[in-house]
Amino acid sequence: MTATQAVPFTAVTFDDGFWAPRQAALRTTTIPFLYEQCAKAGMIAALDVHAPADGLPIEFQVTPLGTKPATPVMYWDSDIGKWIEAAAYTLATQRDAALEALIDDLVTRIEAAQEPDGYFNSYFQRRVPDKKWSNLRDWHELYCAGHLIEGAVAYAAATGKTRLLAVMRRYADLIGRTFGDDPGMKRGYCGHEEAELALVKLYRFTNERRYLDLARYFIDERGRQPHYFDAEAHARGDDPANWYHHTYDYNQSRLPVRAQNKVTGHAVRAMYLYTAMADLAAEDADADLRAACERLWQDLTGKRLYVTGGLGPSWTNEGFTRDYDLPNDTAYAETCAAVGLVFWAHRMLLMTGESRYADVMERALYNGAVSGISLHGDRFFYENPLASRGGVERWVWHLCPCCPANIARLLGSLGQYVCSTGPDELSIHLYGQSHCRARLGERHIALHQQTRFPWDGDITLTIDPPTPSRFTLRLRVPEWSPAFTVSVNAVLVAAPSLDRGYIRIDREWAAGDRVMLSLAMPPRLLSARPELVFDLGRVAVQRGPFIYCIEESDAGVDVERVALDAAASISVGFEPELLGGTGILELPGWITRAPNGHAALYSDQPPAQDLVSVRAIPYPLWAHRGPGTMAVWLRRAG
Amino acid sequence: MTATQAVPFTAVTFDDGFWAPRQAALRTTTIPFLYEQCAKAGMIAALDVHAPADGLPIEFQVTPLGTKPATPVMYWDSDIGKWIEAAAYTLATQRDAALEALIDDLVTRIEAAQEPDGYFNSYFQRRVPDKKWSNLRDWHELYCAGHLIEGAVAYAAATGKTRLLAVMRRYADLIGRTFGDDPGMKRGYCGHEEAELALVKLYRFTNERRYLDLARYFIDERGRQPHYFDAEAHARGDDPANWYHHTYDYNQSRLPVRAQNKVTGHAVRAMYLYTAMADLAAEDADADLRAACERLWQDLTGKRLYVTGGLGPSWTNEGFTRDYDLPNDTAYAETCAAVGLVFWAHRMLLMTGESRYADVMERALYNGAVSGISLHGDRFFYENPLASRGGVERWVWHLCPCCPANIARLLGSLGQYVCSTGPDELSIHLYGQSHCRARLGERHIALHQQTRFPWDGDITLTIDPPTPSRFTLRLRVPEWSPAFTVSVNAVLVAAPSLDRGYIRIDREWAAGDRVMLSLAMPPRLLSARPELVFDLGRVAVQRGPFIYCIEESDAGVDVERVALDAAASISVGFEPELLGGTGILELPGWITRAPNGHAALYSDQPPAQDLVSVRAIPYPLWAHRGPGTMAVWLRRAG
Repeated sequence: MTATQAVPFTAVTFDDGFWAPRQAALRTTTIPFLYEQCAKAGMIAALDVHAPADGLPIEFQVTPLGTKPATPVMYWDSDIGKWIEAAAYTLATQRDAALEALIDDLVTRIEAAQEPDGYFNSYFQRRVPDKKWSNLRDWHELYCAGHLIEGAVAYAAATGKTRLLAVMRRYADLIGRTFGDDPGMKRGYCGHEEAELALVKLYRFTNERRYLDLARYFIDERGRQPHYFDAEAHARGDDPANWYHHTYDYNQSRLPVRAQNKVTGHAVRAMYLYTAMADLAAEDADADLRAACERLWQDLTGKRLYVTGGLGPSWTNEGFTRDYDLPNDTAYAETCAAVGLVFWAHRMLLMTGESRYADVMERALYNGAVSGISLHGDRFFYENPLASRGGVERWVWHLCPCCPANIARLLGSLGQYVCSTGPDELSIHLYGQSHCRARLGERHIALHQQTRFPWDGDITLTIDPPTPSRFTLRLRVPEWSPAFTVSVNAVLVAAPSLDRGYIRIDREWAAGDRVMLSLAMPPRLLSARPELVFDLGRVAVQRGPFIYCIEESDAGVDVERVALDAAASISVGFEPELLGGTGILELPGWITRAPNGHAALYSDQPPAQDLVSVRAIPYPLWAHRGPGTMAVWLRRAG
Repeated sequence: MTATQAVPFTAVTFDDGFWAPRQAALRTTTIPFLYEQCAKAGMIAALDVHAPADGLPIEFQVTPLGTKPATPVMYWDSDIGKWIEAAAYTLATQRDAALEALIDDLVTRIEAAQEPDGYFNSYFQRRVPDKKWSNLRDWHELYCAGHLIEGAVAYAAATGKTRLLAVMRRYADLIGRTFGDDPGMKRGYCGHEEAELALVKLYRFTNERRYLDLARYFIDERGRQPHYFDAEAHARGDDPANWYHHTYDYNQSRLPVRAQNKVTGHAVRAMYLYTAMADLAAEDADADLRAACERLWQDLTGKRLYVTGGLGPSWTNEGFTRDYDLPNDTAYAETCAAVGLVFWAHRMLLMTGESRYADVMERALYNGAVSGISLHGDRFFYENPLASRGGVERWVWHLCPCCPANIARLLGSLGQYVCSTGPDELSIHLYGQSHCRARLGERHIALHQQTRFPWDGDITLTIDPPTPSRFTLRLRVPEWSPAFTVSVNAVLVAAPSLDRGYIRIDREWAAGDRVMLSLAMPPRLLSARPELVFDLGRVAVQRGPFIYCIEESDAGVDVERVALDAAASISVGFEPELLGGTGILELPGWITRAPNGHAALYSDQPPAQDLVSVRAIPYPLWAHRGPGTMAVWLRRAG
């Protein structure tokens, strides 16, 4: 049992200006659009494992470089699983027969393909049926299983339809019979973590402890000596020394997970692993595993996290490099990694109740994760750089289309991140105009947030217990807010008690009680540690949960020509017609003036500067108005 | 005839602290080292065109990535030619029987390989004998001929030995019979310019006008429609639209050269073309061609020249990109391109007598060109970035070893850039302690420079005509010097007349006359035009001809953590034990202090800074003390 429980995602209905339109776009645009792209790419036809491998009409792949033919790849099942999961979340709040028919058709295909022993992997079954479980290091067999399990759980939870769940339980049971310490079993685990957290979800939904045990097995076996990936390579006749990625840091298996203290390798894999570790630490009250999670958290947030909550700077390994290596314009910062960080942060928050985890969760959610999808819901970033020299736009589809369904499933299940409950406690983690129905033990509490958040820090919460009822309300004080006031029924709470970063109000609540929380939300100028050399002499601007950026379409010039006057004050505004209605900042500063065309390239005189005010927009809204230059870290003047 | 004549390179003997040691290293280290590397790489054995192609012991190639096998490549003859040229320059001042024996052996091989009609190209003759003259666009046939011609002229000039010259004249004559407008001739020219300037040299050495005419043919034919490279591709059965480089801008043939006004494509090719264009403009007093040169010069120096005199920012085309695109750490800035710019600038200077050409020549020579070779003479840069994030060092050899011999031949022939003569005029372009013997008509003038230049701007010139003699002495006032005084025999010249950037002293000179020129040489802080976005908020430090840089080995930290205080004064010093003895600058500024290890990555407080003085060294001396970070453009504080 975790210390506190997330509310179900269905418990919260957003009614705000930021998330509600995105959830609407998810339903109306993203979900059908992703299905269509998967179909066009041949990913759905590929589920038919009995069709000849070469006869598949797979000639479509939209890449940033154009359309090209493609062949099925080993991770396609995972994208089907993630799409089902994302679609299921939209069904939970609003059933849709046509959409369910599409999902049921996929389930029928998967069910038909499943082998008698429970195995299902469309790639292996058709392309390399003799290679099952032979290369866990590189091939995404368990990873695909994990995503399909997550999809199955979500679809069952949303609709009560359990056909896919039954398929995946049979598969999970086969996996449980295949992997373990008993004689004849494989002592392996997946090179791409994912099954672990999925099995925890399966356990929580079915209450079958064997799934939790299997997750724990994968976690604890990881990185043990003799190393499974060595043995497995030798069994294939490969020399593990020839591996492309050189080090098991790539998939977080160089050391047993409890001995790890450095965040390494492929960023998405790392986040999925740590999420499962946190799940298990909470389920088992495993202090040792929790300590490992906390060490890794400290390493991530202290050395390798972008100010946007993006992570994994390098294209080469899609992941982490050396300490403090956070370049801006070449930042990989995969959307999936930021989504994974939201997962991990959420688990840490639920386990500890500490606001510092919610701070990072919010940072990643509002910035590095949601930047991965366009406002309209049909264009996607795989990489989320913090600066663009121009030419960067969201794409329609990708050779490895992992990110779109990942951000889609996060948006679809957003409600669960808003608050959490204990037997006598209701904690509010995220603010935003919304209705929530939370259960404290047997008490059903309605909670209404009225606010212009994220554009304003004033939040009115209306608490509606069915009968007067004593419990603790915990209200997060975000790290971006230097001051707050809180009142209950118009009476100011003097010196409110603080508990792990939350205001703690312990009283008997009656229907209609109103809590007014006023979070100061001044624009902040953030400086980076000097080891972050790409940010030296620069500042990032934050207000509330958003990191702001400037774009060429607002600055009128290459954004690098803008220097921010750190001594002057920033104006806060709201533009109802801009980007669906958004808060903006007006940044005071200077634009370096271009001399006349015949002036020398280099001169003893510094170039003249013009005093300006440049509009900044929230980072996730960038790249909606053409491929001009963009910057988060602005040169600091004054 | 050019307006003024360069002195022969043999006319000047350096006796200074900067060039003299490098010329000594050239003779003692670089020339034997390069021969050895060519031999190891199989490049000398490859000259034997009658040996079986597959039997060659070519298994050596040292690259930045290690040693790997190699096969002969189409441009190897050019490297042999350049090595002969560089070696010849050292022989001109000091004969060396052993070295001449090596060269004579190469000549014997080339002579033996030459076909009866005069053709010689070791790659084509052995590997693709049926493909001669079939792909001028991509294959470097005429380019190789050009470098061998340059080598032949230099060797003949240095030693009087004309066997290679005779071989190359036969080849040049064949080329002259092959290319032209007459029926049956090819209307082509080389995709990699070089033969043009070589033919001008051959003309000047032999006084045979047909070589000048052939150079002019290649120049004027270039870029004409119907385009030769189109026709040639069609003749091979290729579709020219499929060409890898997409645009004839790559080899400066999209337009006829007289219609060009933009410096495009491969930087070395461009420099060699413009050098030949300037040669021809001067030889023919061709105002139209000179105007094209001046337009291209304006484009280069106004939009696409690094402050180091490096050029061609992009690895992709080894050349030019869009206007003002001058990134620092990814700068390609090939050594050969800077060497080529010295050639072109020299031709422009001789044609016009204008100091602005000498300014660029000096900038490239002292910075972006000589940085390509180590002090010891046996390590080389192909690329010359203006910033390093660490890990960059000169290499021993390269798959395409064009740069070492190029910088070697420049160093070997440096004397010719020092001054030039007209019938009644002696112009001093470069300063440095040296002895010069210049001929003005029939008068032999000895000229001695006594100076600590480039570390100091005081120069004492002793003029020794054989008999008292009237002529004009022109002394360049470099653009980096904001003030000067000049005296003749200790009498200050009041308000000296200036002529195209030169002090002009017209008098009767007698043996022992002393001119004292005092050039102010303050440290300068250069700012770039704001279109050079990578330099925004930054300054480069120049003193005298050198651009200075800071290195991690001096700063003690990543150089990006240093910010220069632009308001404080810079100290000038000299370190006799450092890097062979070098001038240095002590830059006042701040180093951003690292907070304690547990501090947050991002903070509302700007990081603390420590007041420091950081040593800067001349840019060409970088990367002699380990692979730490380096920067030319420093963040500007204050």
